Amino acid sequence: MATHKLLLLAGDGIGPEVMEEVKRVIAWLEKAGLASFAIEEGLVGGAAYDAHGASISEADMALAKAADAVIFGAVGGPKWADVGYDVRPEAGLLRLRKDLELFANLRPAICYPALAEASSLKPEVVEGLDILIVRELTGGVYFGEPKTITDLGNGQKRAIDTQVYDTFEIERIAAVAFELARTRRNKVTSSEKHNVMKSGVLWKEVVTQLHARAYKDVELDHQLADSLAMQLVRWPKQYDVIVTDNLFGDILSDLAAMLTGSIGMLPSASLGAADAAGRRASMYEPVHGSAPDIAGKGIANPIAMIGSLAMALRYSLGQGEVADRIEKAIAAVLDAGKRTADIAPKGTPSISTSAMGTAIVEAL
Amino acid sequence: MATHKLLLLAGDGIGPEVMEEVKRVIAWLEKAGLASFAIEEGLVGGAAYDAHGASISEADMALAKAADAVIFGAVGGPKWADVGYDVRPEAGLLRLRKDLELFANLRPAICYPALAEASSLKPEVVEGLDILIVRELTGGVYFGEPKTITDLGNGQKRAIDTQVYDTFEIERIAAVAFELARTRRNKVTSSEKHNVMKSGVLWKEVVTQLHARAYKDVELDHQLADSLAMQLVRWPKQYDVIVTDNLFGDILSDLAAMLTGSIGMLPSASLGAADAAGRRASMYEPVHGSAPDIAGKGIANPIAMIGSLAMALRYSLGQGEVADRIEKAIAAVLDAGKRTADIAPKGTPSISTSAMGTAIVEAL
Ligand SMILES: CC(C)[C@H](C(=O)O)[C@@H](O)C(=O)O
Ligand SMILES: CC(C)[C@H](C(=O)O)[C@@H](O)C(=O)O
Repeated sequence: MATHKLLLLAGDGIGPEVMEEVKRVIAWLEKAGLASFAIEEGLVGGAAYDAHGASISEADMALAKAADAVIFGAVGGPKWADVGYDVRPEAGLLRLRKDLELFANLRPAICYPALAEASSLKPEVVEGLDILIVRELTGGVYFGEPKTITDLGNGQKRAIDTQVYDTFEIERIAAVAFELARTRRNKVTSSEKHNVMKSGVLWKEVVTQLHARAYKDVELDHQLADSLAMQLVRWPKQYDVIVTDNLFGDILSDLAAMLTGSIGMLPSASLGAADAAGRRASMYEPVHGSAPDIAGKGIANPIAMIGSLAMALRYSLGQGEVADRIEKAIAAVLDAGKRTADIAPKGTPSISTSAMGTAIVEAL
Repeated sequence: MATHKLLLLAGDGIGPEVMEEVKRVIAWLEKAGLASFAIEEGLVGGAAYDAHGASISEADMALAKAADAVIFGAVGGPKWADVGYDVRPEAGLLRLRKDLELFANLRPAICYPALAEASSLKPEVVEGLDILIVRELTGGVYFGEPKTITDLGNGQKRAIDTQVYDTFEIERIAAVAFELARTRRNKVTSSEKHNVMKSGVLWKEVVTQLHARAYKDVELDHQLADSLAMQLVRWPKQYDVIVTDNLFGDILSDLAAMLTGSIGMLPSASLGAADAAGRRASMYEPVHGSAPDIAGKGIANPIAMIGSLAMALRYSLGQGEVADRIEKAIAAVLDAGKRTADIAPKGTPSISTSAMGTAIVEAL
């Protein structure tokens, strides 16, 4: 049995709490002889800043590059609101994405039947919802240069950010979306603002050409990002796979996640390109953030974090059946009515982070 | 009685249909001796392109500058999908915004009690919703240079858009938000992505400083744009005034409008700075777009368009009571159960665009 090299980066806020439960699942899988792991742990975000003044150390970056998969918690919090721009918690996350070339961010928004009531939307609008947002993750305004603030004198400053996209960046993320659509409901919606942005014009052109060249069997739609935000609220089930740039993807995937009413349930994958040996860098993380307001209380929902491990087993570690088994255990626990506070209907009892972890391990 | 110089730019799609109903309201107001207008009409968007190859003519730009207010319908449609970038329908709208220096876009998202059921959200989430998005409208990535597509050879192109904000641009839009908050529930939420964008860093800094200097009586919050998108879906009533940049404002205001379930109901105002005489350029338009799919069928909802005239009467023409009167007529028509197709519950009868116009004129 192959031993999987994992790097666990718990990060800040509720990150360490939910990562604890992942470790318990890992321990159980090893004990049951279902998988074998070589685990490293590192620091990222505010935790790394506190330890060594950078949002991730060179040593941890090296571990990330050597790992079969990185399992990432969450970063950020008010404690680091005033640290320098280059060492802010998010910089560690962005460096991981950029240096590992994790250009493809897969964010499923799935509404678990048992949880449809938790959504702020009407049950009929979200029941059975299953969309996949494919977000470009290493380009666009996140990394484009110039990215500066200049003092103009007279009390005036000028801030500049630059959105840059090259053909190949759009092409490779669109290919990921088309391939994934083929394994699902065969429909891709590409989103940009070609009516005001040149990057939107190029985006639409490249996606259209790639479609015509190699994916005619997949249905392709184009939708402006503002209109997509509206339609996601109105009737999200009209979508299957949505492909969009880094910044629109940031906003639209959070929107889509919140439609399900249970953002504490949703894992995500960030993938690089496969090399000749079929190996690709990868990082798995919950869609939710560090939630500083509830950190330390032991009430965070560990399901998205445990689901991220399952995604890693399926997409990076070649152990799809073990992933299935974890996901079934999660579903069983939900069916049994176990709820952390975020997904418990108002006025009903909820269980702690570790009780949820225990329940999942027991269901395994 | 002052005669108001209005320029009507109906535009494309359902624009001309809903503008017809505005004209009927104008005619009624004149006949009733409640207001006096000097009306000009012009072309914008695809209609202008078809007539003279530009998305707005110089003559119509001159009329817009001379007007007390511009009443704008909507632009765009598949017919003009392949015209050049500089003459696309949206270019006319963007030129009006830029050349009239309409930096402040006010987009109310109000849920009419009679229509709460039309929302895809649970009634308790949206009933009584009343938020105001204050969107910066003449800066950011919409207008920043460079904005180019370059051929790199080897089949590769590079697209660049530039987000630029100067201190004064942020300051003046934030001031509008604070002033408006004072007339409402006294709370401003400022939104950006300071964790990845330098413009977000400057935005947050300028808003914070202006607040400390002149608006300490107003409650101020900062929220990342992705997180705001989520929170708008989860519990929108937590907000009063939201101030944000051009691109985030585009997406978030459409999202907020759709929460109400009746985007065909929502007007918006775009305002310039007041000159020494207190005169400011202004344009009023429905939040909805040109809706090419239903254009020509006579089923579009004219209420947002008529509401835009009411907003113009209140904010630019000094006739607040006449505005009240129009808004009361709209409310009365809704209370009487009259619905266009977009706001009629499934399976219930709906009335046409002109029947809705007639009902409102009769209620007046
Ligand atoms: C933490 C932040 C930099 C990040 C982003 O903007 O990409 C987060 O919002 C996300 O979506 O993963
Ligand atoms: C038509 C388009 C250029 C415009 C924009 O992006 O600003 C529209 O979406 C709006 O919000 O008024």
